[in-house]
Amino acid sequence: MIGVFDSGVGGMTVARAIEQLLPRYPLVYFGDLARTPYGSKSADTIAAYSCQNTEFLLEQGAKLIVIACNTAASIASDLLRQRFDVPIFEVITPAVHTALRCTVNGRVGVIGTRATIRSGVYERTIKAQREGCQVYSQACPLLVPLVEEGWLDKRETKMIVRRYLQPLKNNQVDTFVLGCTHYPLLREIIQARIGKKVQVIDSSAALAAELRDYLDQHPELAAGLAASGQPSRYYVSDVTEAATAIAQRIFGRPITLERVLMDH
Amino acid sequence: MIGVFDSGVGGMTVARAIEQLLPRYPLVYFGDLARTPYGSKSADTIAAYSCQNTEFLLEQGAKLIVIACNTAASIASDLLRQRFDVPIFEVITPAVHTALRCTVNGRVGVIGTRATIRSGVYERTIKAQREGCQVYSQACPLLVPLVEEGWLDKRETKMIVRRYLQPLKNNQVDTFVLGCTHYPLLREIIQARIGKKVQVIDSSAALAAELRDYLDQHPELAAGLAASGQPSRYYVSDVTEAATAIAQRIFGRPITLERVLMDH
Repeated sequence: MIGVFDSGVGGMTVARAIEQLLPRYPLVYFGDLARTPYGSKSADTIAAYSCQNTEFLLEQGAKLIVIACNTAASIASDLLRQRFDVPIFEVITPAVHTALRCTVNGRVGVIGTRATIRSGVYERTIKAQREGCQVYSQACPLLVPLVEEGWLDKRETKMIVRRYLQPLKNNQVDTFVLGCTHYPLLREIIQARIGKKVQVIDSSAALAAELRDYLDQHPELAAGLAASGQPSRYYVSDVTEAATAIAQRIFGRPITLERVLMDH
Repeated sequence: MIGVFDSGVGGMTVARAIEQLLPRYPLVYFGDLARTPYGSKSADTIAAYSCQNTEFLLEQGAKLIVIACNTAASIASDLLRQRFDVPIFEVITPAVHTALRCTVNGRVGVIGTRATIRSGVYERTIKAQREGCQVYSQACPLLVPLVEEGWLDKRETKMIVRRYLQPLKNNQVDTFVLGCTHYPLLREIIQARIGKKVQVIDSSAALAAELRDYLDQHPELAAGLAASGQPSRYYVSDVTEAATAIAQRIFGRPITLERVLMDH
């Protein structure tokens, strides 16, 4: 199975994109709702949680891992690649590739959680591929709780988005990366605030395309995944009404969340 | 030592009140920053975390436990009393006593996290003591992240507080319980929105007074606590800059947060 983990249910935007592009392959998802959010926690803690989540997915039969959480990807991608002998995909690299294809003026904006922005991973990855690019980034720690509350169209949410985006807007970015899997749910108001001409990039479609290319190049792995015949499963370390509602909103259908205990 | 736990650093408002009223007694604090917040998690998860936190404090030499988190108190007080053979104090009962002494019209407002309000503990506790009281409660899930971001005086915070409090204001409450240890940091804007004539009750002072009365009645326990001679210690399951800043704001001096690993 394709293993996907996230700090909560935001990563289901990624699972949904994979399901749409690669419907033949069953997916096992883990959302760490008992310890969510990751974005305001320390790098040590995020790394430890990412290892535990990966172990859990491998135990469930995952043959490759998708880190569907920008925060975990920014902190723990290299560690997971060292520690686990399966292909590890993450959402940052595909988003950067897409951003570099889109930008004309070489000015790219990135928003994310505090931990993601503090890690500097987007800036490093972009500059490693195109040195002259200017990267402007902004931590937006309140957007995850606003999304989780379902405040997607409230006036206060629009004001907070405007406050966060103003510095990036001043820097005349022409391309803008949504560096957190919750943010696609705010895409319209983000687009309205940053400006209609700015390309807004959501990493989920780019990640799914990268995964498709990889499976095309590795037919044996692909055949094994497709042959498992199991249905996709969605595990979480805690079940709440709010999470169930967001999952249904993302998939456009009810999703059964199965609870698994991580540490008690 | 007096053991105090909270889901994070909000409970330090309670630790601070105890320190001010009972400076002779050393305190051991545990803030579960690696798994914070509790307020949007399920009752099962909150109960399990509360048991683990209590075990940790007992291992550190705590002889009584203060649940300085309304969410944990609302879910796990009875469970901890059954499971552990030490006195268990919590922030809800003292706040209710204070509210019942204050109210004239018998209309009491309560705000808290989603889990606290869903538990119905304030309504049950108030009605058990004065049947005719009307209790109006409102979950305010965005206030904890706003406090943790330090957005204590931002326009958006005031608007969100107004949106949450409007239904309670319409019900003409004359007494108003801050049912989360983060909320005292928003006390001024809450008082401004709910109205100057409304009595706003913060449970930390009431809890400290209850603890003082208990120790007066149990001189042997009190003498043992005072004789330990150890300095107070502040443990957390994760260390972040934001938490360190809030701790300093609450105590009015730098606080050393010692990290302890809970589950990895």
